[in-house]
Amino acid sequence: MKRVRIGLAGFGTVGGSVYRYISTQAGFLESRSGVRVCLSAIAVRDPGKKRSHGIPLPRSLLVKPEELVARPDVDIVVELMGGCGMARKLVLESLKAGKPVVTANKALLAEHGEEVFTQSNRSGTPIFFEASVAGGIPLIQSLKEGLVANRLQLIYGIVNGTCNYILSSMSKEKLSFEKALAEAQAKGYAEADPSFDIDGIDAAHKAAVVATLASGGCVKFKEVHVEGIRNVSAADIQFAHQLGYEIKLLAIIRGINPKSVEVRVHPTLIPSANHLASIHGVTNSMMVRGDVVGDIEFSGPGAGGPATASAVISDIVQAASSCGRNSSEFNGTTARIRPVGPSVAAIESVVSRYYLRLTVTDRPGVMAQITSVLGRAKIGISSVIQPEGHEGETVPLIFMIHDAPYKSVKLALSAIRKLNCVKAAPIMFRVETFGK
Amino acid sequence: MKRVRIGLAGFGTVGGSVYRYISTQAGFLESRSGVRVCLSAIAVRDPGKKRSHGIPLPRSLLVKPEELVARPDVDIVVELMGGCGMARKLVLESLKAGKPVVTANKALLAEHGEEVFTQSNRSGTPIFFEASVAGGIPLIQSLKEGLVANRLQLIYGIVNGTCNYILSSMSKEKLSFEKALAEAQAKGYAEADPSFDIDGIDAAHKAAVVATLASGGCVKFKEVHVEGIRNVSAADIQFAHQLGYEIKLLAIIRGINPKSVEVRVHPTLIPSANHLASIHGVTNSMMVRGDVVGDIEFSGPGAGGPATASAVISDIVQAASSCGRNSSEFNGTTARIRPVGPSVAAIESVVSRYYLRLTVTDRPGVMAQITSVLGRAKIGISSVIQPEGHEGETVPLIFMIHDAPYKSVKLALSAIRKLNCVKAAPIMFRVETFGK
Repeated sequence: MKRVRIGLAGFGTVGGSVYRYISTQAGFLESRSGVRVCLSAIAVRDPGKKRSHGIPLPRSLLVKPEELVARPDVDIVVELMGGCGMARKLVLESLKAGKPVVTANKALLAEHGEEVFTQSNRSGTPIFFEASVAGGIPLIQSLKEGLVANRLQLIYGIVNGTCNYILSSMSKEKLSFEKALAEAQAKGYAEADPSFDIDGIDAAHKAAVVATLASGGCVKFKEVHVEGIRNVSAADIQFAHQLGYEIKLLAIIRGINPKSVEVRVHPTLIPSANHLASIHGVTNSMMVRGDVVGDIEFSGPGAGGPATASAVISDIVQAASSCGRNSSEFNGTTARIRPVGPSVAAIESVVSRYYLRLTVTDRPGVMAQITSVLGRAKIGISSVIQPEGHEGETVPLIFMIHDAPYKSVKLALSAIRKLNCVKAAPIMFRVETFGK
Repeated sequence: MKRVRIGLAGFGTVGGSVYRYISTQAGFLESRSGVRVCLSAIAVRDPGKKRSHGIPLPRSLLVKPEELVARPDVDIVVELMGGCGMARKLVLESLKAGKPVVTANKALLAEHGEEVFTQSNRSGTPIFFEASVAGGIPLIQSLKEGLVANRLQLIYGIVNGTCNYILSSMSKEKLSFEKALAEAQAKGYAEADPSFDIDGIDAAHKAAVVATLASGGCVKFKEVHVEGIRNVSAADIQFAHQLGYEIKLLAIIRGINPKSVEVRVHPTLIPSANHLASIHGVTNSMMVRGDVVGDIEFSGPGAGGPATASAVISDIVQAASSCGRNSSEFNGTTARIRPVGPSVAAIESVVSRYYLRLTVTDRPGVMAQITSVLGRAKIGISSVIQPEGHEGETVPLIFMIHDAPYKSVKLALSAIRKLNCVKAAPIMFRVETFGK
């Protein structure tokens, strides 16, 4: 039996769940894993803060954040504070001190990965981050270990439950974006200030972390192309249905090699037959294509205290098994992550299919004007819908566009916008069939 | 960098793929995992055998099976021979010699698990078997490590590609069982003698392995309740569709505790909305319910040389990281598996819903006779279909039965069979909604 003593930083939704688990399930965990996890200390930013989970903060374990790492009774630091301020300092300090880190902090890894992995490599101290992506789904370990034989060719999926909940409601209940968002807020699936989720930042953080793992070197969040779901309207979802598609906010990683990688987060039309089209609500789902294994899919709860705690606990057990081992072995079965990874391919050069919705005047010649612009830009049209039943000054016009680099589409859209017959900014979403 | 030397036993579909991978991808694997895998020796039963994969057996590495384990240049034995004869001897010898084993042999684990895990525990030498269940899906590691925090409450899924291919063809193309089987054989998805797959033995081996991992102690294959798919007819699949169900061969494990566990393999009606209902062809898919994390789903290729090799290679890397470590740490992050595990709950006591199809004479009073038998046995009927359009001496009569222990249903069916109006053996399949 191995005994490991942890210091917990943060006592929010996830921290509270981890605390409750360790306080009540340590014996069970020991029987399953052979590891006895003891909680030595808890550090929080504000001990007076009211916490919605209602679990009382155990005052006897409370220490100051700046004391946590140095404590001799802390072998592993479990960072669940979030953010890039105090959390960053704690993580770097802990790695420097040779104490393995377990974290759920995707923002830290995505925005300060270079610094974190440099320190981890320098001191030969591993950092575990299963809980940073896709909550309780053991995706990170699968990418690192279970699929280690593979060149990862394509990874895509739903990694933000808030956006998926909103898009599901819009699709199934035909709600407007505003109504669906309000409903998600009422149910606690969206924050009062929802921008972090609905603008795609959270999904892009996760995409950067996954791309880092997949390529073996740090991928910078700031290079990731991000579009949120504010522009998705109920009308677009209905038109997508007519065309046999569903609209989902996807993280897409492909073209993975040591020098370059395509990483993007945006609303995406996917065929209704794609498994992800039937993932509703706050569930996360990821598809991983390896050159040896083929396509593997993982689905499950992507957030929430207990599901995320499940991932944190498994990392603690993993970290325990790395404690006291020769640091040259590092993460057991994973090579070190290089602090400087591939650069993200510019979105302008990314080729995909597109859905366009234009708002045009209902007059003869309009179609000719628009299609000439597309033709001049060498952009092929795969289908057009001019839906019935729209009366008034303007009508919607929907184009499905063949594979084209974004650069060309962007130029064409800017020319189309200037046409007199076009009365609103064109709406554009990418369409992906993922080679099927 | 760690270097590990393996001895490969077996050169069939999986062995050939592993050999090809290591011969061509060792450098890539080293860059991903930090482990250099060297192949020292290969042992096969019959060096003269023609192998369908067409990869030439490297004669310079060939050794006799009885020499493999003792070789000083073999650190890890990779057993891909299959069967319980020579493979069993090799695995036990290797564990005894303190050399970790990687195997894809579900039959060996399911039928001789007690002996294998006793030896593994006695010599403190781990055995890895990711490739034994669900091919390339990292299910075993997820159960052992990723979900280590959880009490596993329910595991079910499609673990035999041959049966799923046949049932999919029957469902989508309305083929008879015989035609679907012949087609599967022609495409190489079923063996010339398909009984091992279609009688559910392969799925039951896998169910025993998963139940062993989930409960932490060896579950005996011979106690697992097994029904194959020979009795599933095109008519039953059509009636199931009418009722809103699909028929799948499922492995179901639940009621998991150290003393007892429910483990069964049988054709099962599942609601069409269940994700597994849309898993077609040879894909495998497993749902795992943990008390902390909730429901996690895994899908992917469950068989085939490369997909299975992907799992074998990841186990080799895992095994490499266990080489030379203190044996008290054992599998890194997994407690030892107890050689004697829970006993399997008798199928007679298992409660479920049922689909019954009776072949009856088309006369007044028949329904009354049958429903009285069910009534006397305290078996509740949730719905009845007497389909239109059946002419002739006999007509089908379909009952959906509420939750009942199999004991009662068995007795009632035997009484029903004796009624004059019942002209053929009743067809019975279990119905599962998995609490949804």
